[in-house]
Amino acid sequence: MTQAFRSLDEFRALLAQAPAADLTARKEAEARNGQLTKPPGALGRLEDLAIWYAGWRGTARPELAAPQVVVFAGNHGVTAQGVSAFPAEVTEQMVLNFEHGGAAINQLSKAFGASMDVHALSLDTPTADFTQGPAMSEQELVAALLTGWSAVGDETDLLVTGEMGIGNTTSAAAIAHALYGGAADDWTGRGTGVDDAGLANKTRVVAEASALHGGQGDGIEVLRRLGGREVAAMAGAIARARSLRIPVILDGFICCAAAACLAATEDGALDHCVAGHASAEAAHQALLGKLGKEPLLSLGLRLGEGSGAALAIGVLKGAIACHSGMATFAEAGVSDG
Amino acid sequence: MTQAFRSLDEFRALLAQAPAADLTARKEAEARNGQLTKPPGALGRLEDLAIWYAGWRGTARPELAAPQVVVFAGNHGVTAQGVSAFPAEVTEQMVLNFEHGGAAINQLSKAFGASMDVHALSLDTPTADFTQGPAMSEQELVAALLTGWSAVGDETDLLVTGEMGIGNTTSAAAIAHALYGGAADDWTGRGTGVDDAGLANKTRVVAEASALHGGQGDGIEVLRRLGGREVAAMAGAIARARSLRIPVILDGFICCAAAACLAATEDGALDHCVAGHASAEAAHQALLGKLGKEPLLSLGLRLGEGSGAALAIGVLKGAIACHSGMATFAEAGVSDG
Repeated sequence: MTQAFRSLDEFRALLAQAPAADLTARKEAEARNGQLTKPPGALGRLEDLAIWYAGWRGTARPELAAPQVVVFAGNHGVTAQGVSAFPAEVTEQMVLNFEHGGAAINQLSKAFGASMDVHALSLDTPTADFTQGPAMSEQELVAALLTGWSAVGDETDLLVTGEMGIGNTTSAAAIAHALYGGAADDWTGRGTGVDDAGLANKTRVVAEASALHGGQGDGIEVLRRLGGREVAAMAGAIARARSLRIPVILDGFICCAAAACLAATEDGALDHCVAGHASAEAAHQALLGKLGKEPLLSLGLRLGEGSGAALAIGVLKGAIACHSGMATFAEAGVSDG
Repeated sequence: MTQAFRSLDEFRALLAQAPAADLTARKEAEARNGQLTKPPGALGRLEDLAIWYAGWRGTARPELAAPQVVVFAGNHGVTAQGVSAFPAEVTEQMVLNFEHGGAAINQLSKAFGASMDVHALSLDTPTADFTQGPAMSEQELVAALLTGWSAVGDETDLLVTGEMGIGNTTSAAAIAHALYGGAADDWTGRGTGVDDAGLANKTRVVAEASALHGGQGDGIEVLRRLGGREVAAMAGAIARARSLRIPVILDGFICCAAAACLAATEDGALDHCVAGHASAEAAHQALLGKLGKEPLLSLGLRLGEGSGAALAIGVLKGAIACHSGMATFAEAGVSDG
């Protein structure tokens, strides 16, 4: 296919042209919801989810038949600063594990009937250490965004983006700090499990990154300076889903940092997204607050890979099954109170 | 089959003889969990759930292949006190809706691969109005418990019990008040949606029931005096699941009130149960606190039917799929930090 964009300005233009939800379908879905055999509001957030999904899919009685999980992997130059409890080669080892079906996200994708693809982005060429300069050049970022953009299937009706990248909670913390300010330790957590000294070191790295890059440019520029290839690919995939009106379930801290770069660039860029879960990574809840998203699940996950969002596919499936499958009061001959 | 019990004392004896989880299987599952390709603890509550499930199923690497949803329906004499926003005939109308596949619980059962059966318990003979006397005789309660006991399939590997019964949040509130004390309005909520005057009336009914029955007997006697046939059937099914070491996902306020009658009769009677969700019915969270259960989901549902617990089948499926399907560090050749 023709390359969707060749520069960051062309990508920004696509964000600005993103389609809105179908308000007619949404209204019809609201009307249908009011007729289903249950007391008004008794399905709680499932009702809101189904109506939201109907609006994006453009039909009052949608199906959810083809969820897609895409996992992106990248390596980070900032691991030279000793920010992770795991060595950088684990990124590639885990890519093989994804390809062989052995990771958590493989099991969760299968359990919820989702297809799953893995894209390893130039693992042999880590991004630059962002305590020393921008993580990526413009062309590197364009390439990573395109990988994500191109990974979304035309037939997909629900997207989950996941990631693997040793060092990427540090990248996400630096992004959040650059976008929202506060103190470096507001955004820095234990990731895969660093100890107290490791956490102090991560916080130093985030603070140094902010000192070097702070206040320069929009969300896309923050992504170029502080992101990673897999983080950028998630942003590209989320943007592509929007252009196709495919609803997205956001995963944890890193996925939300990627999404935040879009939201900071274009208002409403995440209207087609719900938050799948609140991660145990300390700053995720605060980041969700900045995005105005209430998580569907809160089960203490902090794995990444798209795992929390994949688990939330079940909630969406349940919501849409009820909305589209239930009988109305009239159909069932039930008194409506 | 031979009748499992003929009196409430025989039922109590079965509760007292209930089997424990398999500690060897549990320990083996813990060891397996520590070897899976993820940072320690990164799957949060999914890890605890899988280990708990493994202990009850007696195998370190269990499957979840045959979840069963059973919905019980009953009518309540206390509806004569005007406690519900819906007329009592809705119980039977909804039973037909369940049988025809039109209710929320039908869609959720299908979405999560669960079988679903409905048992209507003597709908033409409501229980007695418990503001005037005990809701059931001993033989009526034995019959209702047996209906639940017999409804659990031998091949079932996860049970959800749901209910339909106009008036049954009032019964559940009266049970909770009798078991745990406090004020009548601590336990009384809006159910399917009564207004302020309706809520005041329900609270009066709960207080009158306590005045009449308070402090008499154990959890089973509370169930006889204040329960309903569908509430008792849920208790019977939960007890039967325990005798077969089948894990149970508890649903909302009414299901938990049924379960509470077992817990009040026999310590540890709910060790094979997890709480599927926190309902929007005001007192459910407090009741879960009394049972020492942390809900898996909190999505504002207040429908009953087993709907919140059925939605949580997805969480269990995800947990067990990860636990039993993931590769170990050694199998995948991944460095474990």
